[in-house]
Amino acid sequence: MKKYIFGVDVGGTSIKTGLLTTDGTLLEHWEIKTDTTQQGEHILPDICRTIEEKCSQRGISKEEVLGIGLAVPGPVCEDGTIYHAANLGWGIFNVEKTLADLSHLPVKAGNDANVAALGEIWKGGAEGFSDVVMFTLGTGVGGGIVLGGKILSGANGAAGEVGHIPVQEPENEPETCGCGKRGCLEQYASAPGLLRLTRRYLAAHPAESSVLRENANLTAKDVLDAAKAGDSAALAITNQLYRYLGKALAIAGVVLDPQCFLIGGGMSGAGEILLQGVRNYYKLYAFPAVPNAQVRLASLGNKAGMYGAARMLLG
Amino acid sequence: MKKYIFGVDVGGTSIKTGLLTTDGTLLEHWEIKTDTTQQGEHILPDICRTIEEKCSQRGISKEEVLGIGLAVPGPVCEDGTIYHAANLGWGIFNVEKTLADLSHLPVKAGNDANVAALGEIWKGGAEGFSDVVMFTLGTGVGGGIVLGGKILSGANGAAGEVGHIPVQEPENEPETCGCGKRGCLEQYASAPGLLRLTRRYLAAHPAESSVLRENANLTAKDVLDAAKAGDSAALAITNQLYRYLGKALAIAGVVLDPQCFLIGGGMSGAGEILLQGVRNYYKLYAFPAVPNAQVRLASLGNKAGMYGAARMLLG
Repeated sequence: MKKYIFGVDVGGTSIKTGLLTTDGTLLEHWEIKTDTTQQGEHILPDICRTIEEKCSQRGISKEEVLGIGLAVPGPVCEDGTIYHAANLGWGIFNVEKTLADLSHLPVKAGNDANVAALGEIWKGGAEGFSDVVMFTLGTGVGGGIVLGGKILSGANGAAGEVGHIPVQEPENEPETCGCGKRGCLEQYASAPGLLRLTRRYLAAHPAESSVLRENANLTAKDVLDAAKAGDSAALAITNQLYRYLGKALAIAGVVLDPQCFLIGGGMSGAGEILLQGVRNYYKLYAFPAVPNAQVRLASLGNKAGMYGAARMLLG
Repeated sequence: MKKYIFGVDVGGTSIKTGLLTTDGTLLEHWEIKTDTTQQGEHILPDICRTIEEKCSQRGISKEEVLGIGLAVPGPVCEDGTIYHAANLGWGIFNVEKTLADLSHLPVKAGNDANVAALGEIWKGGAEGFSDVVMFTLGTGVGGGIVLGGKILSGANGAAGEVGHIPVQEPENEPETCGCGKRGCLEQYASAPGLLRLTRRYLAAHPAESSVLRENANLTAKDVLDAAKAGDSAALAITNQLYRYLGKALAIAGVVLDPQCFLIGGGMSGAGEILLQGVRNYYKLYAFPAVPNAQVRLASLGNKAGMYGAARMLLG
């Protein structure tokens, strides 16, 4: 009788492991350090060990475990092949097969952003939906696409790279994105992107007073908080953010026709003001012939990966 | 023994029916007029009749027929439900079930643009690929998405509406697209769109001589032909077209990660000059981290719908 699933979210600094029931209750979760030495070759044995320890501690036999789900920070193909998860030191190999051989349990792996979207569908902000595009706004802008309840991987495991949707003409963007292009969504809608918009706005409007000028260690949260408090410069700056995001949602929408967009990541903590701003600009750009997809906040935070990883085992 | 499939492409003026073998040989094809009177209620009986006539004419028994594939000009959901195929007069109903009841044969239906992409994968310009995005440049700009060999329908059957990808800011586009928005790809990359770009360019450059000024009944083909012949105005105008298209391909690429883009429709007759122009601008906008997807020409012309419709029956 299969009662349990392990959902594992492998990050560059820590590995989050969750013990879930097959109906999606997170019984317990814990973290171990990610050992990235020797091209990350200890990572899978470490995962195996922490799962075996948990099983023996709780008296769970392998017959009761449906399998291990793995969220990986890099492209993962349908067959479990991973291509260069740079943060882990990994090259190209089949991570599902390797961990299955080690653990003697079924393994499913997916890209962490896609897996997080699946988790949000199962038990989070998009519960009950089957067609969802998730934008994760953090140090970068990540994306996850789930269609018909299944993760969309793409031909090279790189579908859903919504942070690199071009939202500005290269000629109008003096700086280069981490990907080498200019004008990507990530250059405006990540936390460093919002700070860049802020610096530019303040430099271009030297006469406008703003609380943002008084803070030497400004964070993206400060800018969003100032907008909530009604600071006019912060309102103008966040308006640019909402416009870029709304446009990117509309682009993903006309290509994919989802039921729901989710916004997650650190910046989504801004909540309703961010949602409302994005919704307004989404309407400016969105294809009107299809019913409006909903725009919602992700709700599982950094547990989404564990939930989604576990969910993959349920097919 | 199932040897045959009927592939039916239902258009607003004619219904193209093809008799194919299950290995994809088009044995014969013919057209009947589309009867759009009485909300199009004669269309399915007419299809049924033309198929039964062909079967009796060729001595084909229903046992030898795998089924009927239907390409429909409107959104079609996974389950065969159609939403308002305006050109046919149809409202909302399950077209698969209705035609199956009439014909006593299995039926699969899909949106015509998506079905055409499937046909091109089976026997056309994208043969052998499984992840393809097709742009059809005609009176409008249609789109078809096939991922993992399956048509991507979306939550409302409206995925792949690539003609309505926003490629220009609404503030910079004075005219309204058929969809009600401003700045859609279709406003530049359809045949009327290219003529609009031409009128604007000629008006903005009154001193520049061009063969395009001498033609009172200019067509999109004339503009593309003039570019091939080296007319400087036509080169500048088609360059705008290539840029909008290249950007839209890059957008679809970063969201979907396909193996191949196909360009079809009347304007794709321009051939290599169009491909090369689009490829150049695709590189300007595309996410560099994934291997470059190929950009190719569709090759089945208006037979793609029949091939793709038949292909749906093979699962």
